[in-house]
Amino acid sequence: MDDAPDGPAQDLVADVFARDCTSRAAFESVTAKWASLVLLALGEGSFRFNALRRKVDGVSEKMLAQTLQTLERDGMVTREVVTAIPPRVEYELTPLGAQIAERLRALADLLEASAADVEAARAEHAGR
Amino acid sequence: MDDAPDGPAQDLVADVFARDCTSRAAFESVTAKWASLVLLALGEGSFRFNALRRKVDGVSEKMLAQTLQTLERDGMVTREVVTAIPPRVEYELTPLGAQIAERLRALADLLEASAADVEAARAEHAGR
Repeated sequence: MDDAPDGPAQDLVADVFARDCTSRAAFESVTAKWASLVLLALGEGSFRFNALRRKVDGVSEKMLAQTLQTLERDGMVTREVVTAIPPRVEYELTPLGAQIAERLRALADLLEASAADVEAARAEHAGR
Repeated sequence: MDDAPDGPAQDLVADVFARDCTSRAAFESVTAKWASLVLLALGEGSFRFNALRRKVDGVSEKMLAQTLQTLERDGMVTREVVTAIPPRVEYELTPLGAQIAERLRALADLLEASAADVEAARAEHAGR
């Protein structure tokens, strides 16, 4: 297609393939190593920091804290202080975060169901 | 739930949260920085190497080659030599790769549609 004439409409088309598009940055942010697992976990309900750390097997305290900060900055996770004795902090998904988690869950379901196929492909490849 | 008695059934439950599960490795492999964009691109059709490199804005030759090798090993992408003059190599998705690409596309669609919300969240966060 020829270039469209200059106009604001051009700037409104988001494209994950474009290096400088916010959607590309957001896509990379939610598919980042720990972020995707944290979003999946929070898709099951709200979590306190330590419970979340146990759920996401292998994440370090530092990486989990950084990941939660990024997800909070991007409007996907909220940090809520629950007034109780003692007060506690809980993390939960925003409506956008919940939509993202749903799509990541569909992907995770597929890969959980296909784990044996991936194993078989790897074994076949190694045996070539 | 209490621990189930020992038995082979326990080993058959794939769980992306478990560090040593194949599904976790597969999930990390398809959400890796370039792999997810390559799968999305191949979801639109088969590509030759250089065309794929242009499509996935910002990927280096080396990273694209490595990514394709990993996806081929995991049974998600095939490399096909097309008999023609001159012969050419094309990359395309396997049926599993196509299912994965569909789910990644659903995620990318959402993030493309939410780019403005993510921008707004970041701006609000920066202004706090």
